[in-house]
Amino acid sequence: MFSHTKRFQYNATPDAPDPIFAKQMQELIGGQWGEMSVMIGYLFQGWNCRGPAKYRDMLLDTATEEIGHVEMLATMVARLLETSPVEAEKAAENGGDGGIVGSVLGGGDTQSAIINAAMNPQHAIVTGSGAALRDSQGNPWSADYIVSSSNLLADMRFNVTAESQGRLQVARLYQLTEDAGVRDMFSFLLARDTMHQNQWLAAIEELRAEGLEDTPVPSNFPQEREMSEVSYKFMNFSEGTESQEGRWAEGPSMDGKGTFEYVAEPEAMGPEMEELAPPVEPRLYSTPKQPMQPSSS
Amino acid sequence: MFSHTKRFQYNATPDAPDPIFAKQMQELIGGQWGEMSVMIGYLFQGWNCRGPAKYRDMLLDTATEEIGHVEMLATMVARLLETSPVEAEKAAENGGDGGIVGSVLGGGDTQSAIINAAMNPQHAIVTGSGAALRDSQGNPWSADYIVSSSNLLADMRFNVTAESQGRLQVARLYQLTEDAGVRDMFSFLLARDTMHQNQWLAAIEELRAEGLEDTPVPSNFPQEREMSEVSYKFMNFSEGTESQEGRWAEGPSMDGKGTFEYVAEPEAMGPEMEELAPPVEPRLYSTPKQPMQPSSS
Amino acid sequence: MFSHTKRFQYNATPDAPDPIFAKQMQELIGGQWGEMSVMIGYLFQGWNCRGPAKYRDMLLDTATEEIGHVEMLATMVARLLETSPVEAEKAAENGGDGGIVGSVLGGGDTQSAIINAAMNPQHAIVTGSGAALRDSQGNPWSADYIVSSSNLLADMRFNVTAESQGRLQVARLYQLTEDAGVRDMFSFLLARDTMHQNQWLAAIEELRAEGLEDTPVPSNFPQEREMSEVSYKFMNFSEGTESQEGRWAEGPSMDGKGTFEYVAEPEAMGPEMEELAPPVEPRLYSTPKQPMQPSSS
Amino acid sequence: MFSHTKRFQYNATPDAPDPIFAKQMQELIGGQWGEMSVMIGYLFQGWNCRGPAKYRDMLLDTATEEIGHVEMLATMVARLLETSPVEAEKAAENGGDGGIVGSVLGGGDTQSAIINAAMNPQHAIVTGSGAALRDSQGNPWSADYIVSSSNLLADMRFNVTAESQGRLQVARLYQLTEDAGVRDMFSFLLARDTMHQNQWLAAIEELRAEGLEDTPVPSNFPQEREMSEVSYKFMNFSEGTESQEGRWAEGPSMDGKGTFEYVAEPEAMGPEMEELAPPVEPRLYSTPKQPMQPSSS
Amino acid sequence: MFSHTKRFQYNATPDAPDPIFAKQMQELIGGQWGEMSVMIGYLFQGWNCRGPAKYRDMLLDTATEEIGHVEMLATMVARLLETSPVEAEKAAENGGDGGIVGSVLGGGDTQSAIINAAMNPQHAIVTGSGAALRDSQGNPWSADYIVSSSNLLADMRFNVTAESQGRLQVARLYQLTEDAGVRDMFSFLLARDTMHQNQWLAAIEELRAEGLEDTPVPSNFPQEREMSEVSYKFMNFSEGTESQEGRWAEGPSMDGKGTFEYVAEPEAMGPEMEELAPPVEPRLYSTPKQPMQPSSS
Amino acid sequence: MFSHTKRFQYNATPDAPDPIFAKQMQELIGGQWGEMSVMIGYLFQGWNCRGPAKYRDMLLDTATEEIGHVEMLATMVARLLETSPVEAEKAAENGGDGGIVGSVLGGGDTQSAIINAAMNPQHAIVTGSGAALRDSQGNPWSADYIVSSSNLLADMRFNVTAESQGRLQVARLYQLTEDAGVRDMFSFLLARDTMHQNQWLAAIEELRAEGLEDTPVPSNFPQEREMSEVSYKFMNFSEGTESQEGRWAEGPSMDGKGTFEYVAEPEAMGPEMEELAPPVEPRLYSTPKQPMQPSSS
Repeated sequence: MFSHTKRFQYNATPDAPDPIFAKQMQELIGGQWGEMSVMIGYLFQGWNCRGPAKYRDMLLDTATEEIGHVEMLATMVARLLETSPVEAEKAAENGGDGGIVGSVLGGGDTQSAIINAAMNPQHAIVTGSGAALRDSQGNPWSADYIVSSSNLLADMRFNVTAESQGRLQVARLYQLTEDAGVRDMFSFLLARDTMHQNQWLAAIEELRAEGLEDTPVPSNFPQEREMSEVSYKFMNFSEGTESQEGRWAEGPSMDGKGTFEYVAEPEAMGPEMEELAPPVEPRLYSTPKQPMQPSSS
Repeated sequence: MFSHTKRFQYNATPDAPDPIFAKQMQELIGGQWGEMSVMIGYLFQGWNCRGPAKYRDMLLDTATEEIGHVEMLATMVARLLETSPVEAEKAAENGGDGGIVGSVLGGGDTQSAIINAAMNPQHAIVTGSGAALRDSQGNPWSADYIVSSSNLLADMRFNVTAESQGRLQVARLYQLTEDAGVRDMFSFLLARDTMHQNQWLAAIEELRAEGLEDTPVPSNFPQEREMSEVSYKFMNFSEGTESQEGRWAEGPSMDGKGTFEYVAEPEAMGPEMEELAPPVEPRLYSTPKQPMQPSSS
Repeated sequence: MFSHTKRFQYNATPDAPDPIFAKQMQELIGGQWGEMSVMIGYLFQGWNCRGPAKYRDMLLDTATEEIGHVEMLATMVARLLETSPVEAEKAAENGGDGGIVGSVLGGGDTQSAIINAAMNPQHAIVTGSGAALRDSQGNPWSADYIVSSSNLLADMRFNVTAESQGRLQVARLYQLTEDAGVRDMFSFLLARDTMHQNQWLAAIEELRAEGLEDTPVPSNFPQEREMSEVSYKFMNFSEGTESQEGRWAEGPSMDGKGTFEYVAEPEAMGPEMEELAPPVEPRLYSTPKQPMQPSSS
Repeated sequence: MFSHTKRFQYNATPDAPDPIFAKQMQELIGGQWGEMSVMIGYLFQGWNCRGPAKYRDMLLDTATEEIGHVEMLATMVARLLETSPVEAEKAAENGGDGGIVGSVLGGGDTQSAIINAAMNPQHAIVTGSGAALRDSQGNPWSADYIVSSSNLLADMRFNVTAESQGRLQVARLYQLTEDAGVRDMFSFLLARDTMHQNQWLAAIEELRAEGLEDTPVPSNFPQEREMSEVSYKFMNFSEGTESQEGRWAEGPSMDGKGTFEYVAEPEAMGPEMEELAPPVEPRLYSTPKQPMQPSSS
Repeated sequence: MFSHTKRFQYNATPDAPDPIFAKQMQELIGGQWGEMSVMIGYLFQGWNCRGPAKYRDMLLDTATEEIGHVEMLATMVARLLETSPVEAEKAAENGGDGGIVGSVLGGGDTQSAIINAAMNPQHAIVTGSGAALRDSQGNPWSADYIVSSSNLLADMRFNVTAESQGRLQVARLYQLTEDAGVRDMFSFLLARDTMHQNQWLAAIEELRAEGLEDTPVPSNFPQEREMSEVSYKFMNFSEGTESQEGRWAEGPSMDGKGTFEYVAEPEAMGPEMEELAPPVEPRLYSTPKQPMQPSSS
Repeated sequence: MFSHTKRFQYNATPDAPDPIFAKQMQELIGGQWGEMSVMIGYLFQGWNCRGPAKYRDMLLDTATEEIGHVEMLATMVARLLETSPVEAEKAAENGGDGGIVGSVLGGGDTQSAIINAAMNPQHAIVTGSGAALRDSQGNPWSADYIVSSSNLLADMRFNVTAESQGRLQVARLYQLTEDAGVRDMFSFLLARDTMHQNQWLAAIEELRAEGLEDTPVPSNFPQEREMSEVSYKFMNFSEGTESQEGRWAEGPSMDGKGTFEYVAEPEAMGPEMEELAPPVEPRLYSTPKQPMQPSSS
């Protein structure tokens, strides 16, 4: 069960409206690696967790924090969409017909024209100056962006990825604006992403230390059932061997269970691509090898 | 540019048809963590790579191998959908109307009824006993399943996740069948996933060793711009402190740049949730705080 | 069965081309609340209707009208994409290389540059100056936008929503253009949406008057089977009680079957979040509470 | 900002595992009208609200309650996927090879075969006996299922729809199981849906009483701009006039601003479907009315 | 503008209910190649048509017919979902708790159990025994299934494809049922698909005969601008030359403008895969070739 | 199994960066008719092929070539996103704050403002100047864009469509740019699309010549089972008979098996739209014809 506090976790006020940046910033709300994805992903990982209680609690603590991050971001977008004083003034001068909703081909200066043409049209038509649960291109957020596998190591590798991609996107957006209010909020989100990258890396270390999971995931699948002769071979599927110069081509494997080997010219280990059996069921009307008689049924 | 060899990388023949398992195995082809996702993800990461050549080459080598994995899986599914000898015999006995296409409510024994009712209907109606680029629930594969960010550490964290989730799913499917031919192919895929988990972990180590990237990603964003006082604090957003028992709550942070700290009762650092400014643009017809007069334009 | 009359239900001709507005207006064709959604939603509700004939007939009458609305909108978009005289003249002057297809970075004045950069690229590349079944951000229309539940009250509540969101969007778009031809067509659509909001509200009243359905939907589920002690309580899940000031916090409930009550501090009525049972099936490789031995199968 | 209490709002424990029902019950989590949709819809409506504070607070209170509903449902699904005692016993007898993961075509009795063939394959392969954010057919939850328009009447009509469709689906699922534990939780959800239907109807009344919004939505669009002669006419687009028998065909309109009128044979008010202008831009290669010469550019 | 006739174009009544087949038959309504796709595709092609009037009229005539096909299919599915007499009788015997909604693990015989487990759960929970606009796997119909390019030859090639895939699917479904009522309706649909395949092939011939379009599409793009030396060469990208045995490897090309040629070992005509330029914009935090200093902005 | 050659099939270098055109050109990579669609479509058609070996080999040869086309296109987009010399110079002048990432509302000239506002925001935020597997509107590529039916004629009709729509889009994009490097690559792709249109038309001819398949697809479904009286009739569902003027209205049918006939006023051949049976299962809570008593279960 959850409860709500009517204070933001941190500041969420821009210095000035900016509909173009509002469009770009949607990526952090409804994008593949936005805050919605970590909020919902951690909730489901926590609810599905069958491991020790501390992992579940930790997942749900951070999930709950992330709801508050989406709250800040949505509020920021709504405020970036508020009509600026300049706009309001112009609207008044124009008898109410100018402003943010003026037509590109009608009156208005170049800046208005650019804003009108380039802003997210749904910010006007659909949400009425509110935030949407969509990315910077307008794609709706989808559950395809999360995973909850019940294997904690597999999922925490996903989580460290999500915090990496997410922090990368905040850093890029930081450079796309000079608004001090937006940058202030970003400085907070960047710091939390730093923590969360470290947190999932720490949890990965803990899972190993406690013997719950290890590389390769899943580690309690009996490894003698895999075809061990190819378990530590890097296969070069191209001319040239630049790929031989890396750590993955020699030395002990990262799981400590083998030795990397470089195969410059991997051979096909399977048979000739022989033909699929003819379709013995003619009533599916797939193309056979020989002309067929019409089926009688 | 690519070329094709008409031999499989490894065996891809089941002992017997099994339409139900064919449905389940689709997860490895068109699912979120199926082989298509790594094949396409690595291709785009390689093509977009601006880092040292060995990374690009390595990405494209493994991408090219993965095309061959999808090839094996698609062939396996097509063969699992071939009508079995038993089916064919029954079809003959029934004057051609039974078999895999018999109606549930018509003739046929319980096993046939279960197969007909439970198999993927599109394996009959749409693909005509061929593999689909869909998951085990019939969702089409989507580019939402991949990422290519041009930041190699962020992406390789994704890659090690993908190989972990992927190997986990193969291991689970291994338990859902006893077909020796299927298990033989799975033993090969499991081994390659072991290699690939190790490979991306090795590449992550290499990126750090070469000073190209580090935690937190992106590491060359000036960290003084983030709000450092919350960069290493775990925040407990629930009653009770089970989440304090982990590695993430104390000790040096994983990036070596701070010390974990546990905040049992995090305070809101932002302002009261004050109201959004009234919409000065009445022509969007959002609900205001006070009754509005109809606009005149 | 249906037939087509080669006249529009109302006018569908703009005063002048406007590719930017054509992009924005796509929302009314292929958006979540566009005319396609009501056209298809009403068709399926009508076809699935098992209630009295007048409801089915009414649903199909209005559905059929809506096909004609999509027809007008698609035609309007196609005409907004016709090259304007000005463009054509410039194209001639430029030896045929300018006009609507000129490159942003090439020649052309600012207005052309804005149009080229901001118009829906698929209006040029994919539809060749035709309308698309997509929204203003390019998302394809999807059956996720409709419902047909066979419960007429539930569905008519959806319909009155659809006509409300739809009329709201037309009103907003009305303000985004000053083209008299477009506004003329909008005046017709606004009026029809007024009728349709009234129509569904009337149908809701009729369903109740005839005893076919009532609040709460579904009204013939035996209400003694719900946990009546929480059926009319508003629960406040936040600090502060602004939410107490509304009609929903006291007085008789809208269905006339209870009395609203305000619970300022709702208590959890369920048990402690106890742990999920350990996975007795180790072969799914979920993370358990204790280190596992590799399974032997 | 939010916080989490480690108790469920109500009970969430089934009497016995039931993987088939777990598949069906996914509709309430990740379906179009599941609890996720109201949870996220109300959050965004609250965050985007520019109306009086009591509406925003009320929206966020109920949104926060709904997070706890998704929590209960996800836990219920995870528990329905736990291996039953019977299964575990059989698994032991079979040397660990039977149980829930036995192959259809291998051993196992009919009941096991049905479960294996009909359960959601992703509950085994992807989530490892955990809940997914998907519906009963496996479609991922999508932001297409919500709306937040900033017009409170339009949105609250959506909300009463969502609670109607949602309660209808719980009532139907109630009939699909006889598990007392599941039915106990459903009795709670049904009651809350009763409250929420009443709550949104009360809020609609309040919005009108306060003069903030009315029918037709948006009510502050100047109605003289719509083509009033068709604002209250029902148009019959079929042979026969069953649709004339309803409340929508005569009497005062629901908004009190007009009188319903029935048009038995509506006429086209628009022009003949005249042809679109020829594409003056030949470089888009659309098919013209006359053969074209190859363009020279 | 359209109007509706309250008669079906042809019969749409099954001999008996069959929920499993209802699930499978959804492919023809909401599937990629179902009737909805041709109905909507032809409507948009007609509305966007700028060619001679007879093409537009023909497109809209057939589109209008297809609305009636969806009508028949939706009605058929709704009737296949009606509870059968047998079910109703059992329900009565069981005191109302058995029938189609009985639980798999509860009472009921094997046939009921199979139906309950295998039917589309949304046919019970969501549509209440009505048809859905979804395919046989539950995917919602999407505008991704249609095309309207304004180039009539390109689109009519799509149309002949759609009628081919569609007729193929009806023929396969014909074999999946023995219900005489269903087969009667299918015999009608098969015949119309025969007509429509012929119709689009005829229209293709007509477009060529009238000089409006030809192979290669678009035929009025100046062909001297393409790199003609590879315009008629088949390139063999594999070992072995089975692909040389076909009509595409020698003889005059189908457009009469060249001669097919077989290239057994195609050479790369492009440069070495040289490296992308280093990202001169360090503030995007992509991985560079050399370690970077933190940016100062 | 596949291998990679580190040379491009053809040139893939633009003369200059152009982020707007990079956005538009994404259509050729991840659009419905982009190169990814033919690459993946041909792969699956080849892998699923049960017909003569030459067809499978041919399909896989061309599929393999297409991988190399996606490679060229992705590289081209990445290069179009490289910061231009002009941009770099300005960035230096501005102390590093201008360039491609400058804010619209901040400094920068009109051209920069347009680029920043109109470019694909994900090219900066998500891919870091790399190509995405998305179309020009940002929709992710989806397996909905391909088909593999196992019926070679049905599929090759799809293939000729794909090459027609694809070549049409390249031709349109050719007109949207004057960059000689881009046009050079397009001249190669246009030529290959010319070949591939011819190739699939040749394969269609071959399938017929060999008796494997013919019109109507599927040709071995016993045609006496279709309702032959409507197999060659064009039905006019509108007032007026422009649609009578075409080849499809008279003369021998294209399959040589019938004669086209024009039906000016087609009659409904089905029954009155009689009502669906009342829902005998009251526990689904659909609206019945008469008021229901609450169910007792």
